Amino acid sequence: MPGTLSTTISPEGSLEVLSQHEVNRLRDTSASGLHDLLRRCALAVLNCGSPTDDGLAVMEAYRDFDIEVLQEDRGIRLKLSNAPAEAFVDGRMIRGIREHLSSVLRDIVYVFNEIQQQPRFDLSTSEGTSNAVFHILRNAGTLKASREPSLVVCWGGHSISREEYDYTKDVGYHLGLRDLDICTGCGPGAMKGPMKGANVAHAKQRRHNGRYLGISEPGIIAAESPNPIVNELVIMPDIEKRLEAFVRVGHGIIVFPGGVGTAEEILYLLGILLHPINADTPFPVIFTGPQSAAEYFQRIDEFLAYTLGDEARDRYRILIDDPVGVARAMRKGIDEVTEFRRANNDAFYYNWRLNVQPGFQQPFEPTHAAMAALALHHDQPVHELAANLRRAFSGIVAGNVKEPGIRAIEAKGPFHLHAEPELMARLDELLNSFVAQGRMKLPGSHYVPCYTLK
Amino acid sequence: MPGTLSTTISPEGSLEVLSQHEVNRLRDTSASGLHDLLRRCALAVLNCGSPTDDGLAVMEAYRDFDIEVLQEDRGIRLKLSNAPAEAFVDGRMIRGIREHLSSVLRDIVYVFNEIQQQPRFDLSTSEGTSNAVFHILRNAGTLKASREPSLVVCWGGHSISREEYDYTKDVGYHLGLRDLDICTGCGPGAMKGPMKGANVAHAKQRRHNGRYLGISEPGIIAAESPNPIVNELVIMPDIEKRLEAFVRVGHGIIVFPGGVGTAEEILYLLGILLHPINADTPFPVIFTGPQSAAEYFQRIDEFLAYTLGDEARDRYRILIDDPVGVARAMRKGIDEVTEFRRANNDAFYYNWRLNVQPGFQQPFEPTHAAMAALALHHDQPVHELAANLRRAFSGIVAGNVKEPGIRAIEAKGPFHLHAEPELMARLDELLNSFVAQGRMKLPGSHYVPCYTLK
Amino acid sequence: MPGTLSTTISPEGSLEVLSQHEVNRLRDTSASGLHDLLRRCALAVLNCGSPTDDGLAVMEAYRDFDIEVLQEDRGIRLKLSNAPAEAFVDGRMIRGIREHLSSVLRDIVYVFNEIQQQPRFDLSTSEGTSNAVFHILRNAGTLKASREPSLVVCWGGHSISREEYDYTKDVGYHLGLRDLDICTGCGPGAMKGPMKGANVAHAKQRRHNGRYLGISEPGIIAAESPNPIVNELVIMPDIEKRLEAFVRVGHGIIVFPGGVGTAEEILYLLGILLHPINADTPFPVIFTGPQSAAEYFQRIDEFLAYTLGDEARDRYRILIDDPVGVARAMRKGIDEVTEFRRANNDAFYYNWRLNVQPGFQQPFEPTHAAMAALALHHDQPVHELAANLRRAFSGIVAGNVKEPGIRAIEAKGPFHLHAEPELMARLDELLNSFVAQGRMKLPGSHYVPCYTLK
Amino acid sequence: MPGTLSTTISPEGSLEVLSQHEVNRLRDTSASGLHDLLRRCALAVLNCGSPTDDGLAVMEAYRDFDIEVLQEDRGIRLKLSNAPAEAFVDGRMIRGIREHLSSVLRDIVYVFNEIQQQPRFDLSTSEGTSNAVFHILRNAGTLKASREPSLVVCWGGHSISREEYDYTKDVGYHLGLRDLDICTGCGPGAMKGPMKGANVAHAKQRRHNGRYLGISEPGIIAAESPNPIVNELVIMPDIEKRLEAFVRVGHGIIVFPGGVGTAEEILYLLGILLHPINADTPFPVIFTGPQSAAEYFQRIDEFLAYTLGDEARDRYRILIDDPVGVARAMRKGIDEVTEFRRANNDAFYYNWRLNVQPGFQQPFEPTHAAMAALALHHDQPVHELAANLRRAFSGIVAGNVKEPGIRAIEAKGPFHLHAEPELMARLDELLNSFVAQGRMKLPGSHYVPCYTLK
Repeated sequence: MPGTLSTTISPEGSLEVLSQHEVNRLRDTSASGLHDLLRRCALAVLNCGSPTDDGLAVMEAYRDFDIEVLQEDRGIRLKLSNAPAEAFVDGRMIRGIREHLSSVLRDIVYVFNEIQQQPRFDLSTSEGTSNAVFHILRNAGTLKASREPSLVVCWGGHSISREEYDYTKDVGYHLGLRDLDICTGCGPGAMKGPMKGANVAHAKQRRHNGRYLGISEPGIIAAESPNPIVNELVIMPDIEKRLEAFVRVGHGIIVFPGGVGTAEEILYLLGILLHPINADTPFPVIFTGPQSAAEYFQRIDEFLAYTLGDEARDRYRILIDDPVGVARAMRKGIDEVTEFRRANNDAFYYNWRLNVQPGFQQPFEPTHAAMAALALHHDQPVHELAANLRRAFSGIVAGNVKEPGIRAIEAKGPFHLHAEPELMARLDELLNSFVAQGRMKLPGSHYVPCYTLK
Repeated sequence: MPGTLSTTISPEGSLEVLSQHEVNRLRDTSASGLHDLLRRCALAVLNCGSPTDDGLAVMEAYRDFDIEVLQEDRGIRLKLSNAPAEAFVDGRMIRGIREHLSSVLRDIVYVFNEIQQQPRFDLSTSEGTSNAVFHILRNAGTLKASREPSLVVCWGGHSISREEYDYTKDVGYHLGLRDLDICTGCGPGAMKGPMKGANVAHAKQRRHNGRYLGISEPGIIAAESPNPIVNELVIMPDIEKRLEAFVRVGHGIIVFPGGVGTAEEILYLLGILLHPINADTPFPVIFTGPQSAAEYFQRIDEFLAYTLGDEARDRYRILIDDPVGVARAMRKGIDEVTEFRRANNDAFYYNWRLNVQPGFQQPFEPTHAAMAALALHHDQPVHELAANLRRAFSGIVAGNVKEPGIRAIEAKGPFHLHAEPELMARLDELLNSFVAQGRMKLPGSHYVPCYTLK
Repeated sequence: MPGTLSTTISPEGSLEVLSQHEVNRLRDTSASGLHDLLRRCALAVLNCGSPTDDGLAVMEAYRDFDIEVLQEDRGIRLKLSNAPAEAFVDGRMIRGIREHLSSVLRDIVYVFNEIQQQPRFDLSTSEGTSNAVFHILRNAGTLKASREPSLVVCWGGHSISREEYDYTKDVGYHLGLRDLDICTGCGPGAMKGPMKGANVAHAKQRRHNGRYLGISEPGIIAAESPNPIVNELVIMPDIEKRLEAFVRVGHGIIVFPGGVGTAEEILYLLGILLHPINADTPFPVIFTGPQSAAEYFQRIDEFLAYTLGDEARDRYRILIDDPVGVARAMRKGIDEVTEFRRANNDAFYYNWRLNVQPGFQQPFEPTHAAMAALALHHDQPVHELAANLRRAFSGIVAGNVKEPGIRAIEAKGPFHLHAEPELMARLDELLNSFVAQGRMKLPGSHYVPCYTLK
Repeated sequence: MPGTLSTTISPEGSLEVLSQHEVNRLRDTSASGLHDLLRRCALAVLNCGSPTDDGLAVMEAYRDFDIEVLQEDRGIRLKLSNAPAEAFVDGRMIRGIREHLSSVLRDIVYVFNEIQQQPRFDLSTSEGTSNAVFHILRNAGTLKASREPSLVVCWGGHSISREEYDYTKDVGYHLGLRDLDICTGCGPGAMKGPMKGANVAHAKQRRHNGRYLGISEPGIIAAESPNPIVNELVIMPDIEKRLEAFVRVGHGIIVFPGGVGTAEEILYLLGILLHPINADTPFPVIFTGPQSAAEYFQRIDEFLAYTLGDEARDRYRILIDDPVGVARAMRKGIDEVTEFRRANNDAFYYNWRLNVQPGFQQPFEPTHAAMAALALHHDQPVHELAANLRRAFSGIVAGNVKEPGIRAIEAKGPFHLHAEPELMARLDELLNSFVAQGRMKLPGSHYVPCYTLK
């Protein structure tokens, strides 16, 4: 069993000035249904040094861990029992981790109190959902009014090879040299490399206020613990709002090699960008990796062309083994975004203009029934097909690494997916190539598919 | 007619990152019932250089003034028509005034949307009201977690003599030399002098982050326009919440000579401090003025002793003609408050511990009927009598300077107050002394009482 | 006898990191000839609240005052004996005064060690002198590379009427509203008013880094103690270097009514600006005062036209009773200076381009012999005559308020000045008008001339 | 031939406010003997990405490189011809490198003008030398008055194995987690690893003002180019002043494995610490490395015990393979230093108290004659022997990597060293072990000794 430590700490920043009522509500998380959610997310944050992506294993390893919110007149304190020792230095919690812990608490309580418990946001509408996403981000301090566009969202697998990881660092380094900031899902692999690279480059460029923004969700955080380099952490309530957060705060997107999660993100992004309303909105998208990843992107490219049509290809560029080229293209793309926003008097910090269809906003619950019912055929508008494919990949991610998904697969066996024959074949081929390339799990482990195609 | 100017400006700070929904709501103030409120408060802020305390006269002088909230994708802009020219320097609005304008908009919209339109705060309870006050102040950025207690609330008349005004400046100067900050109702006279004095002292002490906090209310702001030295402005929805804000954020209170408004404040304060629950809470209170004000405080002192009992005297000190002594005593008192809060783990920024009875929180609408019905006799607990006397004075203030009060008096004649004989005599004497000392109106004007005693 | 206080304090800022050698040298000031200089300047700084302009009286009043530099391994401490009590608040020295004390020490030691004791600056050449002035200012932190031109030098009397004082405040206020900073000789009267006005305006404009630069000299500081609003203080070694500092760091100059000191400054300034090399260098100069000062400037204007010729008038404007107009004209003038410097790639912080002839740089020792020998006639180039007139006025200032001057007059009677007849008459008339207007001494005192004209 | 680029840049910070005289002197470096020195150091700074430690090779590779100081009224510009392209990003120089370039210019000119050309520092005395070191450091802004002791000097080889390099990173990481800063000789290997590790740790601890201080010298900088993470760079004029700078600004020292340079540093340090005057001055010294370095330190330890006596061992601890232990011990040691300085009222930023004997201060010119003349025997006080051994190692370093040394060896063959027999044997053994462990050159190259022992 790993080393643990019990202590009481003060939260950071955003939780400093609270009303007694708010303190009560926070304390009550211990008693309410939020407690388990808080406990899991807190553990993930504290466990940031661990290389495993197996959320259940983490929960198991620290099954005695607990967190309690204590009320004091001057505010709150957090009582931690049997917390991972590595979060501390000589008994004092690392400040970055303390900030993450406060962020987790802040977002869980805000989402519960302001989004879920209040009638204020009509989540059944597209506008209401985008508003909710906006408010969660603003409450987290993510929206910075005075800052020029500089945020590059980096997507890609958490279980990539050392070569690919080094490549993501290299790209991050060259982005950082060009005064660009990094936003990722904030786990290991392609979510950590660009930040590390940018951190070194920012030091060389004396960019003291560089941003390393991590956007996570309760279902995934245990598998993808935030690295402490992340200096802004937001926990969105579900994957759909998390994805919307990425596309609304990011000024450009780089996709590194990954697995189904990355495929989900790509389909989400292109499904949105291909909507006619968004046709004229500039949004730089680059797929990149080292030479060894060339095949991976070739397959994705073919699959996208088959499913979404050739015009999808106009929305992204594939650049292989060229970190400097990627960084230059992204810098140029973001300069165009800046110019466009300025010309249209758009906010820099939130892309209100981008249209996101409800099909990409409604949370998809990947039950066996829902997965089996997905309409995977060309008899529907392109963005509908993209939305359904996104859901299919989302379900596979859940079956692979999210706790409820894993438990469902354990109980009822793999998900069944149905598609029109040709699409089925293409999908099968793509997923098999992911398995073959070892992109479904951390290197070294054996992958048992959580799905069957029929 | 005074000089005016029409222009469009960007708001400051707190209104920078808004959702489209919020922008819509702001823009709709133009159409809703809020528009008139916003217009009046905005005009008061823009008119800050004017010496008049006659709100109606101001409204009259700038009857063509209008303000409109314009929506832009990047946020909002404020369109001003026929605004007082003195708010501008070579066509550019003075930055302090621009901040005040933003504060007015921020607070009016927050109170309307979050306090009045939401079921979140139960204003019929004491706890709910204190919570609402807390949230308005926090939303305004008034509650600063990391700051040591230093906020001296200064009360007193807006229509005081030059000698008294210079005295308030002198006291403010000596407070500022001792690293104390100033909070007032933010109009002229005793609300401006201490800030001006402290501003000079802070410059000498190189205290760059000195606070000059003004707490106003829509009903009074036109008569007591905030001086631009005020670097934090909050508009509380009514006089009761304004008074609660004073006693919860202030760490000590100085009372300068004034009229009925000052008497209202004194009764409010002592009514609270005399409640047994608050007996052990340290709260330095000093009445002070130049030699010429000695009689004023002697009369107040006698009236308080008669109405609230001799023990009321333990809660305040009277220091005549001694600015240095006042500053030293206040510094010492606030040091004790600091020690007490630290020992009890109380917040520095909001005095949660102070018990405020509902009788001091419920808004009092000074209609002729309500004024006539006030129970002014000793057949009730002391703090109840204090509450009722506070209401009586509050009504007289309304009749003197608040727009609805003035209109009511114009329509129905003076308010009638009923009290037990001895109390009636004392009250009569006190009020007459105010009139005699010219404390009911700006110097030079003739005072017509808005009340009769029966 | 006034209240005094003995204590030991740490200096501020510029004296924090010292070598042991430097500490030794500082400590030795106690023993060397510098000690008396340091003592006199220190007393002047500590005595800043006093209204007297009589340096000897100040020295007399605090004849037991002493200052000693103590050596500690970590740096130095200053031991003060019998210091004026008003420099302290509850036993702690006002921070602004502490900074001034450090500035005095810094400049006296720097001038002695680096300028006077080192062969590095050849003070017999114009270039060497300008370089020395530059180094004293840079060592004092006065030269700020990144700041846009904004420094308005305000000259004028220290013994002006209340009306004139209020006018200087008003001008300062309107300069401050336009984001301009103030530089003066840092005593009372016209040297304090503009700073006070600008301080209020800067508060309203939220200009947190407003500059209030005082440039003094050992001979004058006791008569014109720096006001603590001064947030940068420099002690130049003599009046000539002080005047050069004014014209090299200032971006424009406003002259308020004053006496002979002001006349000295005007002649210095015009003598330089009229030199052909400086003909194309923009330098806004405005003479201004309330209506009552109209005659004063009319006489100056006539005297200048007579002595320096009509073209002198092109270099200044006279604006009477128009604070807003003065501020606007100065803002416009400084904008032109900014443009000119940018176009010529000139530094903003030091006007290297300005030619200052040796006649304006060589220290003038106003002995009886030197005064009597001054060539005051038209038989010389205009700038030579200006230089000699400047010396004449300088000597009268010395006889009025500088300690050695006063002692010399006491010993040998008034200075004798010789001039050609018409010039003599004009000069007599001008000086008499100063006496008649009470501009030679603080109001209330009787002026005994320290000169005779032959 | 590597890519190059020609451009003109503005220097950073310390060179912003210059007198015209100073600008002239800077420009004249192009003409004077300083030009070659400036050119070599500038090239080293620009070449920071190169892995070679062969200064001559670097000079050869960029033989067309040149730097020129241009004069402009507003200051200076640097004209670079054929500069290494890697110092630029899309044509703009990396800011950290630009700062280094300015530092190089600043220090070369300061040393030349203020130390070498002025009679101000008597470099023949110990006090004069320490004063000169102090002034160079203060002029560079290295001495920060308000900072708590936190500076850990890390010494060790620039040509260490990957394992050892990773170990130095790990130690740096754990130092950084404990809020400690890093000072090194600022080249690759053990001089870069601790900074990289600390940089990550500081990011996690949100220590935004972490210091990465590099202290170099003209003779070595080409072989050990500063990494751009270095955010403060100082060029001391020779190795003796560089070593004195290390021990006076550092609060503790960690020695990683290295070669003769490291041995030189160890002997210098212990020679000073063993002087009786320094006996009570706390100064934490730790020798550390991974398991593979155990033998290295064992041999050093034995050599020290033999040459300097057993009591030398009380001045250092050897900790093998224990980064956390090293960091904890150093934190504790520095806390004791802090306490000691506070108790003795010593400066935090410069260890004046430390006695450095002239034998460690006088520059040693490693000619063949001087090397042959070194007294290497026990017939002298221990600190004298330490001083001579230090010189011997210093000469070998020069022969290995410094340009004049390499040229001397090329011309006259290896240095001859003479020692008493037993010492000779020990020395031979130690040096051979360095060669055997590959610590004399970058891995992969073959080492030809630049010395013979007789």
